[in-house]
Amino acid sequence: MKKAAVLGATGYTGIELVRLLLLHPAVNISYLSSESHQGRELSQVHPQFTGKPIPVLSALDPEEVPGDTDIVFCSLPHGHSAEVVKKLKGRGLRTIDLSADFRLEEPSLYRDWYGITHTVPELLPEAVYGLPEVNRKLIKSAWLVANPGCYPTSVLLGLLPLADKGLLSGGGLIIDSKSGVSGAGRSPKQAFHFPECSESFKAYRIASHQHTPEMEQLLSLVQGSGVRLIFTPHLIPVNRGIISTCYVNLAGRSDEEELREIYHSYYRHAGFVKILEPGMFPETRWVRGSNFCHINLTLDERTGTVVVISAIDNLVKGAAGQAVQNMNLMLDFEENTGLSQAAIVP
Amino acid sequence: MKKAAVLGATGYTGIELVRLLLLHPAVNISYLSSESHQGRELSQVHPQFTGKPIPVLSALDPEEVPGDTDIVFCSLPHGHSAEVVKKLKGRGLRTIDLSADFRLEEPSLYRDWYGITHTVPELLPEAVYGLPEVNRKLIKSAWLVANPGCYPTSVLLGLLPLADKGLLSGGGLIIDSKSGVSGAGRSPKQAFHFPECSESFKAYRIASHQHTPEMEQLLSLVQGSGVRLIFTPHLIPVNRGIISTCYVNLAGRSDEEELREIYHSYYRHAGFVKILEPGMFPETRWVRGSNFCHINLTLDERTGTVVVISAIDNLVKGAAGQAVQNMNLMLDFEENTGLSQAAIVP
Amino acid sequence: MKKAAVLGATGYTGIELVRLLLLHPAVNISYLSSESHQGRELSQVHPQFTGKPIPVLSALDPEEVPGDTDIVFCSLPHGHSAEVVKKLKGRGLRTIDLSADFRLEEPSLYRDWYGITHTVPELLPEAVYGLPEVNRKLIKSAWLVANPGCYPTSVLLGLLPLADKGLLSGGGLIIDSKSGVSGAGRSPKQAFHFPECSESFKAYRIASHQHTPEMEQLLSLVQGSGVRLIFTPHLIPVNRGIISTCYVNLAGRSDEEELREIYHSYYRHAGFVKILEPGMFPETRWVRGSNFCHINLTLDERTGTVVVISAIDNLVKGAAGQAVQNMNLMLDFEENTGLSQAAIVP
Amino acid sequence: MKKAAVLGATGYTGIELVRLLLLHPAVNISYLSSESHQGRELSQVHPQFTGKPIPVLSALDPEEVPGDTDIVFCSLPHGHSAEVVKKLKGRGLRTIDLSADFRLEEPSLYRDWYGITHTVPELLPEAVYGLPEVNRKLIKSAWLVANPGCYPTSVLLGLLPLADKGLLSGGGLIIDSKSGVSGAGRSPKQAFHFPECSESFKAYRIASHQHTPEMEQLLSLVQGSGVRLIFTPHLIPVNRGIISTCYVNLAGRSDEEELREIYHSYYRHAGFVKILEPGMFPETRWVRGSNFCHINLTLDERTGTVVVISAIDNLVKGAAGQAVQNMNLMLDFEENTGLSQAAIVP
Repeated sequence: MKKAAVLGATGYTGIELVRLLLLHPAVNISYLSSESHQGRELSQVHPQFTGKPIPVLSALDPEEVPGDTDIVFCSLPHGHSAEVVKKLKGRGLRTIDLSADFRLEEPSLYRDWYGITHTVPELLPEAVYGLPEVNRKLIKSAWLVANPGCYPTSVLLGLLPLADKGLLSGGGLIIDSKSGVSGAGRSPKQAFHFPECSESFKAYRIASHQHTPEMEQLLSLVQGSGVRLIFTPHLIPVNRGIISTCYVNLAGRSDEEELREIYHSYYRHAGFVKILEPGMFPETRWVRGSNFCHINLTLDERTGTVVVISAIDNLVKGAAGQAVQNMNLMLDFEENTGLSQAAIVP
Repeated sequence: MKKAAVLGATGYTGIELVRLLLLHPAVNISYLSSESHQGRELSQVHPQFTGKPIPVLSALDPEEVPGDTDIVFCSLPHGHSAEVVKKLKGRGLRTIDLSADFRLEEPSLYRDWYGITHTVPELLPEAVYGLPEVNRKLIKSAWLVANPGCYPTSVLLGLLPLADKGLLSGGGLIIDSKSGVSGAGRSPKQAFHFPECSESFKAYRIASHQHTPEMEQLLSLVQGSGVRLIFTPHLIPVNRGIISTCYVNLAGRSDEEELREIYHSYYRHAGFVKILEPGMFPETRWVRGSNFCHINLTLDERTGTVVVISAIDNLVKGAAGQAVQNMNLMLDFEENTGLSQAAIVP
Repeated sequence: MKKAAVLGATGYTGIELVRLLLLHPAVNISYLSSESHQGRELSQVHPQFTGKPIPVLSALDPEEVPGDTDIVFCSLPHGHSAEVVKKLKGRGLRTIDLSADFRLEEPSLYRDWYGITHTVPELLPEAVYGLPEVNRKLIKSAWLVANPGCYPTSVLLGLLPLADKGLLSGGGLIIDSKSGVSGAGRSPKQAFHFPECSESFKAYRIASHQHTPEMEQLLSLVQGSGVRLIFTPHLIPVNRGIISTCYVNLAGRSDEEELREIYHSYYRHAGFVKILEPGMFPETRWVRGSNFCHINLTLDERTGTVVVISAIDNLVKGAAGQAVQNMNLMLDFEENTGLSQAAIVP
Repeated sequence: MKKAAVLGATGYTGIELVRLLLLHPAVNISYLSSESHQGRELSQVHPQFTGKPIPVLSALDPEEVPGDTDIVFCSLPHGHSAEVVKKLKGRGLRTIDLSADFRLEEPSLYRDWYGITHTVPELLPEAVYGLPEVNRKLIKSAWLVANPGCYPTSVLLGLLPLADKGLLSGGGLIIDSKSGVSGAGRSPKQAFHFPECSESFKAYRIASHQHTPEMEQLLSLVQGSGVRLIFTPHLIPVNRGIISTCYVNLAGRSDEEELREIYHSYYRHAGFVKILEPGMFPETRWVRGSNFCHINLTLDERTGTVVVISAIDNLVKGAAGQAVQNMNLMLDFEENTGLSQAAIVP
């Protein structure tokens, strides 16, 4: 059995990591940290773990992570994570960082969009962007994996086949995404107080969300030319799930059948990406609690626009599940080990 | 007191009409029909009306609507409504039709998008499209008003100021709308069974929704040149509310301050349209139960795109409230009579 | 026009008072206070009021309430309210207090259940318990009305007819109540963070909720002998609404028909209490946004128990609506002035 | 690998059985039936199974279930199931019936509460009531297991320790239960149409729900004397989860510490029943998607009443999970094989 540590174990991503690691047949949890609940049992904070064999919550201290840990999941707030990762490197620990700190190659972009100066820019070149559907080989040998953001995962999986064919160059690329509230984290805030978002719906951070450059970076890389997009996130009154509705101006260069073939071909080795049958469109419930991404597309001949819709569970494929998928690659397990459960419906 | 009849009084739009008419100081309800509940008290089907003075539900028969009725609200399914309206005309009754039957000027568009051949196309030229913010004068003297669809109301109010300035001509017009489930009506169906849509989110009728030509028709008319758009509706797990997120390619011809001025100017006489302050974006809860439409816009200089977001309550400004607003115009009341209640929050 | 002030105008009860007062034909809002948002427009915090004529938010200062105010609604936290009410008395202002500070006659009960020593116990004898269905006459002439709690309103209206007939003396009185989340107030807390209560359900403060003595006090008074009950509140993932399911051991002394007659008779002058027809049971949606209370009862002959179910909107009949009803009595308006709107469904 | 068949595979219980069987390490699904979707892939109806190795949906025909099937899950409507089970017996197939048809020992009770005459009463004595926490040994050797109802599972697990000590004899036993909407099945009906139950709450079948005799039967058996209770189910606007709040009149014969000890002792071998720590009360989210039952209790010394609260996922421990637990016993697997996943939170 391999050994895994989770830093930041009591947030939503942290408990999802614990849930998934408990399902994994070849990994044990050897260390959990929580700044707010140190010294307590995880099950005292999250009773869904009552009766499970889990270490007591430690204060966060990178020096205390056991030296024989095979993989560290660092699920800490951005800005805070970078320093911790540096210390983990000092101890020779392979790390999957779930914050935004190592996703952008350019420190200046990080500063512009996150409003913080990066404190360990020298590590940026060592980080591998942890989207297995693109970077499988690099991830296998990385010591540091930057786990993608939830919105970017849904958008990138939806658009990579088009980028790969150079089809995002037509301009007017629009991304309209919708996310459940767990994406905002576990700390109570006015905007996520139940009566403020139940029975309601809104957009937020219009044209200014920090996930924008993360999407543009990988799409540009894959396409081989600059991709610029406008991104509008919205808040859905559900706990989990992201739908991204992407509008791509194809300027008449394709038909729907051909596009579907491009997607099937691009994802022929991607076990977690499913292209739905024509006429069946993604619903977040069909991926709730699972690591799958569902995609479908429609070519509107009236306007020459293709509409690509993708759905993920923001806490699984959009965070903890993708991290476990990355771990599987890094530790030489089958990529889907412990991750193939179907969604919970309803 | 004037007298109003509601045909189709037990659907969601019907009961919303009853609710609003009961709040109206100068109109009494003189007649209610319901095919499924004829002979019963409305309060036996909808106990929120227990104790209210309301006529018993009649079988639907246009001949039985009292001859001294000042206004008939026809809240019947599309396809079914047209014939009833014809009979109401024969009896000289002024009518507000809440179906789609009289919204499209071209019978061929109706057939293409609704899949039905229009049975009384000769009446189409007599119908006035009932969006008071555009057609106030025509509505006042009309005998037949075609009450707009819910999605079109939200989209048109969001885009008319731009159309009026010719700013929709840049192509790439994208409408991404989200609606609560009451928009699907009151008849139980698999897709709207609670566990099928609670804790979930999806798009539907991608690039093929029947409200598309209704939007294009009025935007083209106001702009004075053809407007083509792509429209994607989504289902939000809430009862009421529509958010439309509209993406307009401005090709660099404007700045945000100037755009805001265009909106304020266009709506300076529109009491139910509110342009929110910069930085405050529409949320459906802020219009829940009210006839107001909230709008805001953001110019993204990175992409030259303006994002316009509008919110309405689909059953009020998107249906019954707008119908009452039209009635106020037709019966020479102040436009906001009985309609100025604030939204119910939370 | 009479003049009303609202102290604590930005909480959920405060904005509900504003919403209802804007619907009132004979009262203007002359003063609003908010500790957290002083100096701002209410519509900047709550855009549903955009465009409404409302005073700017003042810092809370009882000395600044205009002297010609006819009624002050004091919607402040318990413990905090008592001192403010004392100052309002000093200024000769008639007050409806929506906190718990003047509901219990015994200061010792207040201390036991709220954990605070009452600071102005000398005013307790002057306060009238503001349940109009019981205390209509006393309320009319009171200077200080203690507006009932939300749970007690639902329970008392459900049980008063039985207490009035001495039928609560059999012991084993069980109250199982369920409330929407707005009852917990507007301040964000972990327990009411959206993902912590959406798609979930729980009981809380079992056998120890502070509303218990408030119910026992009035039921004992009306019955003329001590009533003891056990009360379990639960949290429903909705914004508004309370259902109280009350179990009364009748020891065989009644039949259902007779019980229904007792209820109809007791409430024959109560315009806001509706006994539903046999077989139709209260649903919170049927009172959402309205001041009505719906009640029905079932006698289970197998166990000799009567089950009484009552439903209210916790923010209307359970708080702001009842306060306006009390104001109507105090200012000699018809009791239902501005309050007779039907619920918003769906 | 053992082989399992699921009859009625497209309802909510059916797909939950499929989900759980896919997680089971020692069982394959060899046969699926669906009357409404025969001939289709399950993933065409329920895309969460896209890419999983599952048999095509067959028309329901007990003769077609493969003869080497080790266990048949019969997830058909009550009334319909009995005949099918009879045919399965004829073929020598061991069966777990998830309908109500074999839960009640007395056919007359079945007729009284379900309104149907039992068609195969001769099989009733052969059925074992499938609550493993009580009937573990009998289940192991049974050919026919009657899987308990969802409400009874939550109530029985909450009350069995008291029944076992004879503590339910005090009379006045009140069960107030609340269930998510999936308990009503997958067929669309008016009452479960999204806008009819979202943002609402209600009781239903007061004192007349068909699960009442099922609870009384086992509690009486365990206590050794007749237990009579009153049961009120309510509908919560969530997909999954049951909370049962049980009120037991102890007549002063116990203290809370002693009661907790009774529970811990009774469930010392029950891996799926967790007694929460004092002060921590069950929430349905903590068991969502899992086979666990959470219980806690409070003794109210003011009234001599103990309040027992239990929570389950109605589709797992209340249906499919319990069925798999029964299968594990019948096929000599460890009782928790494939069933120990933690709940999905949030």
